[in-house]
Amino acid sequence: MREQAIFYHAGCPVCIAAEQQMDNAIDAARYDVEIVHPGEGKSRIGEAESFGATSVPAPVIDGQPFHINFGAAIADLK
Amino acid sequence: MREQAIFYHAGCPVCIAAEQQMDNAIDAARYDVEIVHPGEGKSRIGEAESFGATSVPAPVIDGQPFHINFGAAIADLK
Repeated sequence: MREQAIFYHAGCPVCIAAEQQMDNAIDAARYDVEIVHPGEGKSRIGEAESFGATSVPAPVIDGQPFHINFGAAIADLK
Repeated sequence: MREQAIFYHAGCPVCIAAEQQMDNAIDAARYDVEIVHPGEGKSRIGEAESFGATSVPAPVIDGQPFHINFGAAIADLK
């Protein structure tokens, strides 16, 4: 059974770059990648929230949001 | 030729979840995935910076940081 990756989009240039990067790197034999733009409908926004996404861009892989928000500044690791 | 994905780690629980998620979803036939913890050496920190990463956790795929930082709140899309 194919698994699903959904990329909830904010329309910004950084989003587009990240979307293409994810689409390229993900295992295409196992995953269907869907891109959802905010303009596509309010129902999809509720769907993103139901997965636990609180902001966009938000990749959701196998129903889990991919969280890589700020943890620590590189400068603080030196 | 195999491509490289590097996950620069901050050691937090959210990092560990994201690392495992990326490792699972990425195309293993094409990518070698390497996990770098900050404690492993100052030289790797400079390497992360040279890819353009400014904070951790930072996935770098094919030499490009995967940016999905905050774009817009879901609430603002309603």
